[in-house]
Order: sequence, then C-alpha cells, then structure tokens
Amino acid sequence: MTGGMAVWDCPDFLDLPERDQKPRRVGLTHVLDKGITPPALEALLTQAGDFIDVLKIGWGIAYVDPAVKERVALCNAAGVLVSLGGTLLEVCAAQGRVDELRHWAAGIGVGAIEVSDGLQAMTLDQKTGLVRSLANDFTVFAETGAKDGHAPVVTEKWLAEMEADLAAGASWVIAEGRESGTVGLYHDDGSVRAELVDAIAARLPLDRVIFEAPRKAQQTWLIRRLGAGVNVGNVPLDEVLPLETLRLGLRADTAVTGQVTLR
Amino acid sequence: MTGGMAVWDCPDFLDLPERDQKPRRVGLTHVLDKGITPPALEALLTQAGDFIDVLKIGWGIAYVDPAVKERVALCNAAGVLVSLGGTLLEVCAAQGRVDELRHWAAGIGVGAIEVSDGLQAMTLDQKTGLVRSLANDFTVFAETGAKDGHAPVVTEKWLAEMEADLAAGASWVIAEGRESGTVGLYHDDGSVRAELVDAIAARLPLDRVIFEAPRKAQQTWLIRRLGAGVNVGNVPLDEVLPLETLRLGLRADTAVTGQVTLR
Amino acid sequence: MTGGMAVWDCPDFLDLPERDQKPRRVGLTHVLDKGITPPALEALLTQAGDFIDVLKIGWGIAYVDPAVKERVALCNAAGVLVSLGGTLLEVCAAQGRVDELRHWAAGIGVGAIEVSDGLQAMTLDQKTGLVRSLANDFTVFAETGAKDGHAPVVTEKWLAEMEADLAAGASWVIAEGRESGTVGLYHDDGSVRAELVDAIAARLPLDRVIFEAPRKAQQTWLIRRLGAGVNVGNVPLDEVLPLETLRLGLRADTAVTGQVTLR
Repeated sequence: MTGGMAVWDCPDFLDLPERDQKPRRVGLTHVLDKGITPPALEALLTQAGDFIDVLKIGWGIAYVDPAVKERVALCNAAGVLVSLGGTLLEVCAAQGRVDELRHWAAGIGVGAIEVSDGLQAMTLDQKTGLVRSLANDFTVFAETGAKDGHAPVVTEKWLAEMEADLAAGASWVIAEGRESGTVGLYHDDGSVRAELVDAIAARLPLDRVIFEAPRKAQQTWLIRRLGAGVNVGNVPLDEVLPLETLRLGLRADTAVTGQVTLR
Repeated sequence: MTGGMAVWDCPDFLDLPERDQKPRRVGLTHVLDKGITPPALEALLTQAGDFIDVLKIGWGIAYVDPAVKERVALCNAAGVLVSLGGTLLEVCAAQGRVDELRHWAAGIGVGAIEVSDGLQAMTLDQKTGLVRSLANDFTVFAETGAKDGHAPVVTEKWLAEMEADLAAGASWVIAEGRESGTVGLYHDDGSVRAELVDAIAARLPLDRVIFEAPRKAQQTWLIRRLGAGVNVGNVPLDEVLPLETLRLGLRADTAVTGQVTLR
Repeated sequence: MTGGMAVWDCPDFLDLPERDQKPRRVGLTHVLDKGITPPALEALLTQAGDFIDVLKIGWGIAYVDPAVKERVALCNAAGVLVSLGGTLLEVCAAQGRVDELRHWAAGIGVGAIEVSDGLQAMTLDQKTGLVRSLANDFTVFAETGAKDGHAPVVTEKWLAEMEADLAAGASWVIAEGRESGTVGLYHDDGSVRAELVDAIAARLPLDRVIFEAPRKAQQTWLIRRLGAGVNVGNVPLDEVLPLETLRLGLRADTAVTGQVTLR
C-alpha cells in the first residue's frame, strides 16, 4: 500500500482497498495550508508526504508569509505540488497585477495556481482566459463556487463552468467548500448538497474533480458515495492520516465488518 | 506538586489540590493521538510528559502511520503507555487477524490495546474473550459504547459490560465519547448524560474507569462532579496543560475563590 | 510592509493597507497561548514574530508549565511581550499571594500582567488598586468582563471600568471574549454585541483597547467596522498569518475588488 516507505514498520496483514501510489490522478489528498512553520511542515512531509498530493497555501497567506520560499522548497523536495490560493489571484486580477504574480510565483518555485471567482467579480470569459493563460506555465486548479454563503448555488451553472475550465486547460476543477465547509458544496450547517455532488459525478470525470471537504463527516459522505478514490480538498494538515484511515475503512465511520471471527 | 520536574522553575506558592505522581491510578490523563509528527511528540513529552499517562493512537492510525514505531519508542522512553485504538482491533477481529495484530503490536513496543465493540459486531462473550486473551500480553483498556450516535445507550447494559470486562482482566474500562464528544456519555449536542455518569460512579471503582471527555465543558463537568482525580480520556494533545489547570482550579471554570484578600 | 524581514522573499506588487511596524500601538495582534512547546514557539516566532505583539499565557497555564521560563525567554528575544493570564492573578489575590506572583513573574522575565475580575470576586476599587500597584513593575493589561456567560453585560459599567483602569495606569484595556468567543463582547452563539463595541469605540481611544476575537468571523467584523488597525486579542497561535491577511484584504471576507482588469 505504501510502497515508497520503509516497509519494515508498515504492517500488511489486513485486506484493505487498493490505493494508487503518487503521482496519481484519483485518491488525491489536497491539503489547506494556513502558514504552518517550516519545521512542522518538514516533519509532516517526512511522516506523511506519501499521502499528500497537493498543498494549497490558502487565499493570500503566501503573500504575507516570510517563510514561503522555504516552505515551497520543502514541498517540492517531497514531491508535493504547491498551489497558490485563488483569492490571491483574484486580488491581483482586480489590481491588474497578474503578470507580477506569475513572475513571483515562478521565482519561488510554486508549481500550481488556483483560478477562482470566489469574489464574483469576473465574467466566465475572464476566468477561462486566466485558466488558458496560466496553464502555459503552471498546473491550474480551477475552482467553482462563491465564498459568500448567501450566493445562490445553481447546479447547471457549476457544471457549465467546470466544463469550460477543463476545456481551457485546467488540470483539475475544484468544488468550493472553503475552510469552514459551510458554502458551495455544503449547506450552512455543513451538510452536503447531495444533488450537486451527484450531478458533478454524473457529468464530469472523477479524476478531474476535487471536492473540498474540510470536515470528517463530509469526507465520510464522499467516500461512502464515491469510493475511497475520491479526490478530497481543503483537508486540514492534521487530518491527513485520519483521512487515509477513512479511505481504507480503518475508522468506524467507513469500516465494514461482517460477523467477527476470532481465532 | 510536580516532583519529577526541575523545581527551579515550578512555582509553589498557591494552595492547590494534591495530584499523585506517575505512575498513578487516579487523575489519569489519557490523550488521543491522530498521528502527531515525531518531533512534535518529542517536544510535548519533554514539556508535559509528567501530565500524560496514556497515549492512545486513535482507531487505525497506527496501521497507516509510517512513523509509528518511532513514536511508540518516544512514548516508552518518557514513561507514557501507548495504546492502540479499539477500531483497529475490531477490524482485525472481523478479518480473523487478531494474532497478526498482537505480534505486530508487541514488535513495535506497544504496551496496551483497547478492546471495544464500537461497530457493534461482537457478542459480549466475544469481547470478554478478547479482553482475557490480550490481557496476557498487554495492558487492556476495555471500552463500552457504540460509535454510532443513533445507537441506544442503556445504562444497565453499560454497567454489566464494564463489570464483565474488569472481571475478564481489563485494567481500566473506558466510557465512550469519541473524538467529537457527541456519542456515548454525551448527547449529540455535547451535553453530559449525567445519570449515566452517576450510575457508573456509583457502581464501579473510579480508579478503574476512564471517561472520554474531549471538550473543555465536559472535562469541567466531570471535575466538578467527581473531583480533580477523575480519569479523563480522549484529551486532545494540545489540551494537556489546560486540563491540568482545570484539575487544579487555575481556570475560571473550576476556580474557587472566596473574598479577595490583597496584601 | 514588513520592513524587519528579509525583503528578497517578501513580494510588494499589490496596493494594500499600511501596517505600522513593531513596536506599535494600533494593529496589535495579541495571541492566546495554551502551552505551545518551546520548539514550536521558536519556529512560530522565527516565521511570524513581526506579526505578534503580545503573547498571553492563558489563565493559570504559566503556573503549571515546566517550560514556562524557556518560553518567556524565547518571546523576549523575539520582541514579543509576554503577559500572564488574569485568572492566575485572581486566584493569587483570593489566596493573598499577589506579592509571590509578582516576584516569581519578574524572576522568569515576564513583562506584563493581566488584571481581570472574570470571577467577579473583587470590588472595582480592589481591581484598580491592583492595576495601580502592578503598573509600577509590569505593563498592565486590564480586562473587563465576566468569564461566566450568564453574567449580565452592562455597557455603561464596562465603560466606567475601562476608564478607571486606564486612569489607574493600565497600558491597554481588554474587552472579554474568552478562548471560545461566546461571552462578554459576544452572544453565546458567537455573534458580536455590536452596540457594546460601538460604545467602546465612541468613548475610548482605540489605541488603548484590545478586543478579544478568537474566531475569524469576529475578527472580520471588527476589521470591517473599525479598520485594519484594530487591536485584536486572544488570537489562536495558528491564526496569526490568517489574521494578517484579513487585515490586508487578502482573504475573501475582507477583500475589496472593483471590476477585474486583466493584462
């Protein structure tokens, strides 16, 4: 299961779902970084780097973090793709500074950029234009959904936007949930908009979609509905191993047991 | 109060409740580990190891954590007993792999195993059989309560199961609360099932019971009801010192003041 | 913006609100410490020390933390003022041990003490007496508000107490919110008592007031109402950089965009 790791302390006596090794296109774990310190990040990557596919430095954190260059380098060395948050790009777009962002991001080694319209200040054409342009130099994650919980969530509009983003060159589309798990895919109490998830799963290839799901109950719902290989986003940094156990049926929420057989 | 520590920076000018030193049977702090990194664990044990009696590696985290062996060794060196989570044992029981688990756990230095039936797939005889068998090689924590919040909580059934587990060789019984504090001992809003706690306290010796209480309000309730020496379980790793202050009356929730006397 | 830091990795291509450098009197970030380990504290101060003005060791944590002296030294070296929590002083006052506290605090290098009456066991005269006396040797933060969410919140009483505390020599007054953000300034659902904040802002100089605001929604509310330079208290340690982005309009909650201009 965890081929890249030292096998001597990885047990292998249970029958568990198969997990692809990195780099993979399904079963992605996309984590949300709010500015973890470099030593803590290094320790996490050493321990659990094989379980982390993408580290998104949330919103504009990268812009203010004096350690950002060091942190990006740690991720790159561990084979973890670093993405900037979409809000930073949106602010740059509003100020006419997208070129400056591209140049700076490339300079510090960032490999991916999220293109979003969480502030609802762009047309779809402007957004797909950004996707197309940035995809020349970066892996692009294109996000759909507003940051404001009061914004209407219209399924058909989401699907059309996701298809347009993929057509424009996005590697993955991301379905919005925020750090809180209370907007976009979720009602304000955190419960899942099941019909929206089902519509996305019916229309789009699941290896091109990442569902933001910061809460355990949301991750559990997705794994039960779409399988252990669902791509999960905005995972808190201290929930990487817990999510892995949810995928593998090693936590009560997803464990499947028949009659117990003792021997 | 904290005799094992360097006394030069431990103040001693307040009248506070007495606390037993480790190893102790009451006033236990049993923490829930979700995969903390080895450097962070080492730092925590150096700072607060005297306040941690048991570290439970939750559910199946131990099985997927590449650093588990290193982490167990750090705990053993600090005099902190490591327990595996009960769900891991339940999955092994369902797959007929209990012997493999025992062998592996002993090999990496784990000293304790939690025997639970959170998935509700065993008979009581099967569970006490596991307790009896595992108690030959490990300290056994036997847990009572379902992981599913919809499962009925029947006081008399809990008491009988706890008594059977102790008779079968469990060192302590654990009353379920999960990481969330919303099942077992608690209603789904986190409030305490007072009548259940009171019934446990009336029937069982309190030095053999650990009450899972992940939330401050729950810890506060238990300390006020059962005293500073209550055994508290599933404590988050960053709540070890805060719990110690609750026990000692150094936080508003449990502080007792008379009329203020200034001098 | 961040003059004290290495400029080579601090981008500077966006138009953002001005932020004063440390030491400053507005735009303070006052964090709540619950006993972070020394290595984690050192890493945080290295990364984000320029954004942290005051570190409060909450309630009685300092009294039980074996690493407190080491942690205070790390903060002092980084130019971060350390304050003891008010509950510790209240317990000392109730036991007639204020002199012992002063002596011990000075001995380990603590520079500030919070004077509060969260337990509601002092008269206002006793409280201002403590402020006056402690201000000879320490920076004094004087807090107003009860720890108990059932205590009545009377605006005029708060204002009079804050004015009395400033007159007695407090450097700043702190408006209570606790770690939870559910008392004092806030209703029990975490929503802001807007009329109380507005009354404080109308009567007192904002460079002398710190508003406890542990939650993002509360920080957002204050920044929108009172500006990026509002003094924010009880900030969780892992929310220092996120708060900085809120102040600067780099998170959706406070971002201001006009029409997007791409180039």
